[in-house]
Amino acid sequence: MAKVGIIMGSDSDLPVMQEAARILEYFDISYELTIVSAHRTPQRMYEYATKAPERGIKVIIAGAGGSAHLPGMVASITHIPVVGVPVKSANLNGMDSLYSIVQMPPGVPVGTMAINGAKNAGLFAVQILAALDENLAQKVKDYKKRLVEEVNEKAARLEKLGYEEYQNKLEL
Amino acid sequence: MAKVGIIMGSDSDLPVMQEAARILEYFDISYELTIVSAHRTPQRMYEYATKAPERGIKVIIAGAGGSAHLPGMVASITHIPVVGVPVKSANLNGMDSLYSIVQMPPGVPVGTMAINGAKNAGLFAVQILAALDENLAQKVKDYKKRLVEEVNEKAARLEKLGYEEYQNKLEL
Amino acid sequence: MAKVGIIMGSDSDLPVMQEAARILEYFDISYELTIVSAHRTPQRMYEYATKAPERGIKVIIAGAGGSAHLPGMVASITHIPVVGVPVKSANLNGMDSLYSIVQMPPGVPVGTMAINGAKNAGLFAVQILAALDENLAQKVKDYKKRLVEEVNEKAARLEKLGYEEYQNKLEL
Amino acid sequence: MAKVGIIMGSDSDLPVMQEAARILEYFDISYELTIVSAHRTPQRMYEYATKAPERGIKVIIAGAGGSAHLPGMVASITHIPVVGVPVKSANLNGMDSLYSIVQMPPGVPVGTMAINGAKNAGLFAVQILAALDENLAQKVKDYKKRLVEEVNEKAARLEKLGYEEYQNKLEL
Amino acid sequence: MAKVGIIMGSDSDLPVMQEAARILEYFDISYELTIVSAHRTPQRMYEYATKAPERGIKVIIAGAGGSAHLPGMVASITHIPVVGVPVKSANLNGMDSLYSIVQMPPGVPVGTMAINGAKNAGLFAVQILAALDENLAQKVKDYKKRLVEEVNEKAARLEKLGYEEYQNKLEL
Amino acid sequence: MAKVGIIMGSDSDLPVMQEAARILEYFDISYELTIVSAHRTPQRMYEYATKAPERGIKVIIAGAGGSAHLPGMVASITHIPVVGVPVKSANLNGMDSLYSIVQMPPGVPVGTMAINGAKNAGLFAVQILAALDENLAQKVKDYKKRLVEEVNEKAARLEKLGYEEYQNKLEL
Amino acid sequence: MAKVGIIMGSDSDLPVMQEAARILEYFDISYELTIVSAHRTPQRMYEYATKAPERGIKVIIAGAGGSAHLPGMVASITHIPVVGVPVKSANLNGMDSLYSIVQMPPGVPVGTMAINGAKNAGLFAVQILAALDENLAQKVKDYKKRLVEEVNEKAARLEKLGYEEYQNKLEL
Amino acid sequence: MAKVGIIMGSDSDLPVMQEAARILEYFDISYELTIVSAHRTPQRMYEYATKAPERGIKVIIAGAGGSAHLPGMVASITHIPVVGVPVKSANLNGMDSLYSIVQMPPGVPVGTMAINGAKNAGLFAVQILAALDENLAQKVKDYKKRLVEEVNEKAARLEKLGYEEYQNKLEL
Repeated sequence: MAKVGIIMGSDSDLPVMQEAARILEYFDISYELTIVSAHRTPQRMYEYATKAPERGIKVIIAGAGGSAHLPGMVASITHIPVVGVPVKSANLNGMDSLYSIVQMPPGVPVGTMAINGAKNAGLFAVQILAALDENLAQKVKDYKKRLVEEVNEKAARLEKLGYEEYQNKLEL
Repeated sequence: MAKVGIIMGSDSDLPVMQEAARILEYFDISYELTIVSAHRTPQRMYEYATKAPERGIKVIIAGAGGSAHLPGMVASITHIPVVGVPVKSANLNGMDSLYSIVQMPPGVPVGTMAINGAKNAGLFAVQILAALDENLAQKVKDYKKRLVEEVNEKAARLEKLGYEEYQNKLEL
Repeated sequence: MAKVGIIMGSDSDLPVMQEAARILEYFDISYELTIVSAHRTPQRMYEYATKAPERGIKVIIAGAGGSAHLPGMVASITHIPVVGVPVKSANLNGMDSLYSIVQMPPGVPVGTMAINGAKNAGLFAVQILAALDENLAQKVKDYKKRLVEEVNEKAARLEKLGYEEYQNKLEL
Repeated sequence: MAKVGIIMGSDSDLPVMQEAARILEYFDISYELTIVSAHRTPQRMYEYATKAPERGIKVIIAGAGGSAHLPGMVASITHIPVVGVPVKSANLNGMDSLYSIVQMPPGVPVGTMAINGAKNAGLFAVQILAALDENLAQKVKDYKKRLVEEVNEKAARLEKLGYEEYQNKLEL
Repeated sequence: MAKVGIIMGSDSDLPVMQEAARILEYFDISYELTIVSAHRTPQRMYEYATKAPERGIKVIIAGAGGSAHLPGMVASITHIPVVGVPVKSANLNGMDSLYSIVQMPPGVPVGTMAINGAKNAGLFAVQILAALDENLAQKVKDYKKRLVEEVNEKAARLEKLGYEEYQNKLEL
Repeated sequence: MAKVGIIMGSDSDLPVMQEAARILEYFDISYELTIVSAHRTPQRMYEYATKAPERGIKVIIAGAGGSAHLPGMVASITHIPVVGVPVKSANLNGMDSLYSIVQMPPGVPVGTMAINGAKNAGLFAVQILAALDENLAQKVKDYKKRLVEEVNEKAARLEKLGYEEYQNKLEL
Repeated sequence: MAKVGIIMGSDSDLPVMQEAARILEYFDISYELTIVSAHRTPQRMYEYATKAPERGIKVIIAGAGGSAHLPGMVASITHIPVVGVPVKSANLNGMDSLYSIVQMPPGVPVGTMAINGAKNAGLFAVQILAALDENLAQKVKDYKKRLVEEVNEKAARLEKLGYEEYQNKLEL
Repeated sequence: MAKVGIIMGSDSDLPVMQEAARILEYFDISYELTIVSAHRTPQRMYEYATKAPERGIKVIIAGAGGSAHLPGMVASITHIPVVGVPVKSANLNGMDSLYSIVQMPPGVPVGTMAINGAKNAGLFAVQILAALDENLAQKVKDYKKRLVEEVNEKAARLEKLGYEEYQNKLEL
């Protein structure tokens, strides 16, 4: 049974939004992923947002670009937390997507991520689920430790090689 | 029977949105005016957008601020033209409202007005209705003539008085 | 007899503005399309805006970039509705075009579309014409149904294939 | 035992951030509220973020303005979800606060609210906690129903009175 | 015979635009000042721009706000230099006025001043006229010397009094 | 003897700024063109601005990008008109260049052109010189007529060929 | 003998810039403070920047608004570090001042502070001087400890009183 | 013993930040360079900022992009001057990085450079160190002279060749 629903306004958002799926897979969290357009399929959106909690979905991740209404509209319909991903838009660099998603009125929050921040949306969903799952909480802590190690390794390597050799090796 | 529906996301938008009503009254166009919140009353919005054309509504004017989803969502549900009014927001001066309303995806247009441009929204609705009403078209032409006369009168007055006296008289 | 006039400030706007023509063709709406520059041919613009309604034009779609004065100036001259398309500009991403078109003063509305939103401009013109044409209104409803179906098909395909295979097939 | 920690960079943020406390009180969620400055008290921040989960805190709400580093830094230290509130700044209207909080790098999400959106931050924390508490989930649903009723009441009143009388009564 | 034409889109621009008149008076340059609205009186604008050079006008100063088309449209019609003043707008702080005036296409320049920079517009017109008038050129040099002296006096006073006393005296 | 001085902050601005030279050549106006950096060669700039009028220079065209101080600083030193060209910058699209050039304080105007608007800067210089030269004024009028003809030709061609064939021929 | 020079483009910048003087007084650093306008007194600026180091000035703090050229121009002339303060402008909230000061080209750095950040400019000058003065370095450390204590005291007070009483007492 | 510490949030910042190292090498200033992530390695950052001064580091140069917290957080921990480099970000062109670094609160300054201005960060560090080193101060003066000569050479060449040949030779 999927615990996280990942939806996006268009299949052109998929290259961005798949990062949310990937990180959920990393944490072994079951998810469902589909296309739901607030603007082209308002009824489908209404139904999705209404029925997702009944299917056991605990968090919805919604990505959209431009007049990005999907996250906010889903948040208006459901009572479970909605995490919004402003997808970079062709003309305003995602500034329109960001404002449209984050500036929600009192009563209807959307937890907004960075522009194209789908990976973090997935991770934030994991953190929400970890609030009721000690095991998962431990995994998040381990993940953060890995981030530390990765930086430490790169730093050590950079300090050892110097910036010129470090870069040369990267380019190989 | 109302021909134009004026809706807004909150009664705090009323001081702005009433200008749309005023100009429709000036042109003797029947209208209805109410509150429909995309975020707090998504079902009411869905019903409003679905049933408005059945009641004879030909144009919907929708105003909203911040994450202003109302105009775009109504446009997604109905097939009649939607005119959007970005209401000036507390923190981003209505730039968020504007981007949220105007940057609609292909397939779902919203005819967007200036920030707080509710008067023009009313006038634009009149222009749409005038496409099928010679009488109304004439009224629009007369209205535009009045704009010319107003400017001409002010210009003549300013040229006669000079800028200092003109301003002094304004301040009295 | 053309019902919609499509004009643009320069032939460099044609790759964007032809989308308006395409969608009008889809709906079997007769249109005319030409170049009218507010800045280089002010007289031609004045004449175009004055005579278009006499030729039976019901809606004018005007696209321009940068200091995009064409839509607003045409709206100042004619009494029929003007739909504005902010064309993406080389340096400010169309933000200049958008502000220049949308921020019209009271009395002279322009129904503004998204940056490069020429397809929606055509569709909005259709919606305006559909206000007096039951047949056309039905076509708009059908068009919106097709949008729903397209999303549904893609969604079903994505749910069936999973995001990786879905993307792989797209790239083939 | 507090379940939500509300922190802010300065006591000048209190008029905004208290809204988070108010909504938690409404939902009977225990919380703690204090001042933690990323820039002036980095050690205090480090300690707060490290020890909060040990005290049973499940969600941290962090508000800050300008170079608003508090939410992101707390998120970098703890494994529990952090909800960020960009506080409106004196000179850039909170656009600096918003960008500083929302544009987090992969691996360290902050669920960002609207500028000054502290009420929604509280509500979002409630939604997170409701993922493991059927009772609380029901309360959220009831809250959303109340939002609907409030709009319906106002709409009915506005439709009955007309916009002029409605506004006159508001002003009394 | 007036040498400079000062025009503005609305009498609400007068408090800003009168600064252009004031500085021209200081330099004893004859001017005319009136209201010409690109959007409400396009014919009047066309006539003004066409006939101004015939009356001996050498430079036109045009101020407008929002979708500020007046300077650019006048520049499109006349061959004499047009100096544009972006008037601060209610909602976007004059950023819309600035972009609308400055981003002119190749072939139709407008010499754009700062937002609300009407005094500089007048001064720039003087500099243009001084290109053919040694006397006037000398006056501009003298004016610039006065600017130097004013700063020097204030600087000397500030250095003598110290910042606290300097400010106290200012406030008296 | 050169009448127009064209200066730029760096030779990387040359591809943009040469357009000013080209248009001056078209109008047979003598000019000089060189590099003067406000930031790297402040003394050279001071000398250039001081001595240009003595050499008979009537207008200075100055282009710069980023913290674009050259036009404003030259305007502060000389009494002749300075036309500023904001050169598109690598990171902020020329918005920094534009603000830096246009927002001059009272007393020191710079006639600012569009971002990368060097051609218009040249044309504006011509218009300034034409104020004292009937011959040149006539050339400007002729130039504007050519602009009209170019648009008319393209429009006629587009109307005749239709947009598809028009574009196909362009691409050949 | 003054070690820090504080200059500003206009006496209207004094209410902001005096904060730099205050913090230098707190640290017992001798300073000089005067008005130097890049735009109105370019020679004075040139002299100031040239002679300041000869007088023993080690750091120059320069504040300016709008087309804020003073910090960058002083940095172009002198070899000592220049700290820039973007003063909030009337129309663009200091965004113009910020871009104009910070976007300096390679070779001529200005250490830029926040909009209106004169206090930090003073503090940064102290930090620079402390690089060669163990005593002063200790004072900076002590100052930072005081910041910690201030926050701790306020936090303790807020935790003890609760947010309502805390605010009530503030308002008394 | 290194006098300058260069740190960056990620090795993807290295192509930008190496410019700081290069200019320090040019001035024969010893430096250390490594990766320290505020968000992924908060403890490492805390330690780095605490211990750098003990190792003899006099200035820290910190570069970061997006929610760029590294420079401000390091400045909050250490008492030595921190020079911040906003690294250009993928989606908002570094505007987010700039605001996040420069808008620091009173008490915790960061001397901010242009977007991607790492070379200037290095140069600014040299200027700080030169405050206590006559030799180094002389080298800075010589460097500035070289800047002058470079511009003079290019200007002479451009004046001699004309812009067309100058560009042709550049392209060879």
